[in-house]
Amino acid sequence: MGISLNQERRIVIIGCGAGGGTAAQFARKTDRKANVSIFEKGIYPQYSKCGLPYVISGKIPRFEDLIEFSEEWFNKAKIDLFLKSNVEEIDINEKIIKVNNNGKYIEYPFNSVIIATGAEPAIPPIKNLSQDGKFVKGVGVVRTIDDAKKIKSLLTPGKKATVIGAGLIGLEMADCLYEKNINVTVVEALPDILSNTLDPDMSAQIMDQLSEKIDIYLNHFANEIKHENGVIKSVSIQDRESGVINQIPTDILVVATGTKPENSLAKKSGCRLGKHGHIIVNERSETSIKNLYAIGDCTEYIDFVTKKPTPIGLGSIVVRQGIAAGINAAGGSYSLPNGVLQTRTTDIFGFEVAAVGPTLSCFESENIVTGKFNGFSLPEYFPGGKSISIKVLVNADSGEIISAQGIGDKAAQRINTFAGAVLGRLNIDLFKKLETAYAPPVAPTLDAVTLACDVVSMKLNRKKR
Amino acid sequence: MGISLNQERRIVIIGCGAGGGTAAQFARKTDRKANVSIFEKGIYPQYSKCGLPYVISGKIPRFEDLIEFSEEWFNKAKIDLFLKSNVEEIDINEKIIKVNNNGKYIEYPFNSVIIATGAEPAIPPIKNLSQDGKFVKGVGVVRTIDDAKKIKSLLTPGKKATVIGAGLIGLEMADCLYEKNINVTVVEALPDILSNTLDPDMSAQIMDQLSEKIDIYLNHFANEIKHENGVIKSVSIQDRESGVINQIPTDILVVATGTKPENSLAKKSGCRLGKHGHIIVNERSETSIKNLYAIGDCTEYIDFVTKKPTPIGLGSIVVRQGIAAGINAAGGSYSLPNGVLQTRTTDIFGFEVAAVGPTLSCFESENIVTGKFNGFSLPEYFPGGKSISIKVLVNADSGEIISAQGIGDKAAQRINTFAGAVLGRLNIDLFKKLETAYAPPVAPTLDAVTLACDVVSMKLNRKKR
Repeated sequence: MGISLNQERRIVIIGCGAGGGTAAQFARKTDRKANVSIFEKGIYPQYSKCGLPYVISGKIPRFEDLIEFSEEWFNKAKIDLFLKSNVEEIDINEKIIKVNNNGKYIEYPFNSVIIATGAEPAIPPIKNLSQDGKFVKGVGVVRTIDDAKKIKSLLTPGKKATVIGAGLIGLEMADCLYEKNINVTVVEALPDILSNTLDPDMSAQIMDQLSEKIDIYLNHFANEIKHENGVIKSVSIQDRESGVINQIPTDILVVATGTKPENSLAKKSGCRLGKHGHIIVNERSETSIKNLYAIGDCTEYIDFVTKKPTPIGLGSIVVRQGIAAGINAAGGSYSLPNGVLQTRTTDIFGFEVAAVGPTLSCFESENIVTGKFNGFSLPEYFPGGKSISIKVLVNADSGEIISAQGIGDKAAQRINTFAGAVLGRLNIDLFKKLETAYAPPVAPTLDAVTLACDVVSMKLNRKKR
Repeated sequence: MGISLNQERRIVIIGCGAGGGTAAQFARKTDRKANVSIFEKGIYPQYSKCGLPYVISGKIPRFEDLIEFSEEWFNKAKIDLFLKSNVEEIDINEKIIKVNNNGKYIEYPFNSVIIATGAEPAIPPIKNLSQDGKFVKGVGVVRTIDDAKKIKSLLTPGKKATVIGAGLIGLEMADCLYEKNINVTVVEALPDILSNTLDPDMSAQIMDQLSEKIDIYLNHFANEIKHENGVIKSVSIQDRESGVINQIPTDILVVATGTKPENSLAKKSGCRLGKHGHIIVNERSETSIKNLYAIGDCTEYIDFVTKKPTPIGLGSIVVRQGIAAGINAAGGSYSLPNGVLQTRTTDIFGFEVAAVGPTLSCFESENIVTGKFNGFSLPEYFPGGKSISIKVLVNADSGEIISAQGIGDKAAQRINTFAGAVLGRLNIDLFKKLETAYAPPVAPTLDAVTLACDVVSMKLNRKKR
């Protein structure tokens, strides 16, 4: 690994996840002469973490299929990818990084560094979850290929699995385990599932159908694991209100209760961190330190609507931050919008769920009006219409559309339409008049998008009187 | 039919299509005391004309299924529906309409009238198409239930059908006939199919797949029918360039070459008409005559982007005009946006096709830049991704998104997202940064919507340099 002495720009990227890989590509495109290098502590080049549950379920055949860009690809793109390379320090003054390259110490010079170190699972305090610093056999998380391989190796039909956490990833895992004929129990500390994505009235709409397939304990936290010879046998969960404890026999326990940012390098370098340890970045993905960028799950930016600090945790945002950081680090100029929309979606137990912007509980003093439409995706007379539910949130003072939630047919694309409205700060008075595409086999004359807007608009007008 | 003498507002609607029916509903909602009456010359209450091809194909079982609101429904809603009632004159001065009610002459007073008389098929000059003022047996159009019943009665597998016109309705009919195992030929006078919806490069993308199922003659017009004993046997079509004539054996000929507005009442009343005879209306669906509104296929409004007069021909717009006219005629206030977006879609031969705004050929001197993305609806590693193609048109001077076209997976909902951008006059620099919803089973991190915007944005930036 030689250090070139000419005057090329040297861009160092730490971490080869979706963010790091994207940043490298866009740096490469922006400055074709720059030296672009990625240092990844693991053994895999860029792969899709979000795809892991679907290899566990068998929907995607092999873990290797998740690799989006191979070592050969990076080589062809003239991006130097160093695997098994743990960056131990960013020396801001000397402009070098210090790397443990598979046991070998090396220094590497840079003009700018993009930190894309991601996050690690946040593990709640469950008694006996680990022994000797390692999870008890049968306990796992879904963060890396190795994590997922461990879970997949445990699956045989009829086994019992418990998933802690009913967020997007927890329920995706529950769905994928269910697909493998595993008996699934989901335990959620909050009173609702998907509480970061849907308001309670929306998530309640799918609870019955989910409960037909899996057991769901809301308002419960897991407090202890029972194991025999280091193998999990059950998990005890406690009702947060009554205090009643339930013992759930469990062969496999998946913890999906969020993440904590991998911030050690940034911290050492003096980057400003947020309340929960995320690296604070701006619209250019710059940290508080010159020439230091950060992207992805280790960062926090602001929410587009509330302007409050928001940890980044969606692949869609990570990739967009990667575009910004890659272009900016390479001497170009790219700014993200003034906050993240957090457009998000999943497909669980046959329901497409999607949302953009904050849920209602994120607002305190704001004057918010909501409107909801439950109906069908096709005209009534046309066979095959599927259920669709759309909820819209509007700032009653400004009339601006601030968020939306959807469940059902093409919910994600319908929510993208609202994402455009939020991004463009469109007023409900205008947006409710949107002409949506109509043809009997495709959509009705007035789409659910429009009809939900009508409901909220009527409520707003009544308020004004 | 008594004439009430009290002081209620009297709203008369002429025509019970989707526009008239919607106007009646919204008039009813706006003024709960008003007298709302619909006069329909036909025998059916409000039904979906756009659904007719799908009853012909058998996808929708019965023609009666297309009835969206029955006589009982109108009765319950306290809307007086008079069928078989042909309005022969609107007396503006006396504020009465003169009606031929199934042979009986009646007069009916009004405060305002909403003309929703629709349109009739525009029949091209094809020799021998009619005998004694009637179509030759085997020739038909698809405008009314009776038209469609006639075509359906002719269908037996293996028969040969020719459809004149490769617009949305022509190709929907071709698809529905193909579904019935009819050998279908489509004849189009223009060099491309769907030329009002897609640019030639977009429509060319589906020509191969369509040509596997049906015969398509572009640049040809039909000039003569051959018949025996009043039954069609063939149609001769001529190449517009070479002049070569082809004889196409045909048992069924469907003419789908557009419509002409039913404007006779409006004309007699002195309403301003457009170049092709459409009733000119404004954003409140008002005609040039006070208290006279008009909506639907008999009208023209302006295009949102070009501001040029535009005949109305989409059910989605008709319904929205109905909302405006109904509310305004009943004393409320409702304005449509400053022009129609013409968001449109269809599903033909397995392709979802959609567009918003004008095609490229609608622009003359404007400085337009286009960008196109062809790709897949899911991440590469996820099985089941379907093809999606999106083309975006941007005004290079202002940066505004002015139109978009799509073919493939969820094209209509993706185009709705662009419709929002056009309506909100969003700039490509902002809109290309839209966070689209991502989850492996639903959509990739960068949706086709965003990637098409990236292409056009790059072209724009190159131009600016």
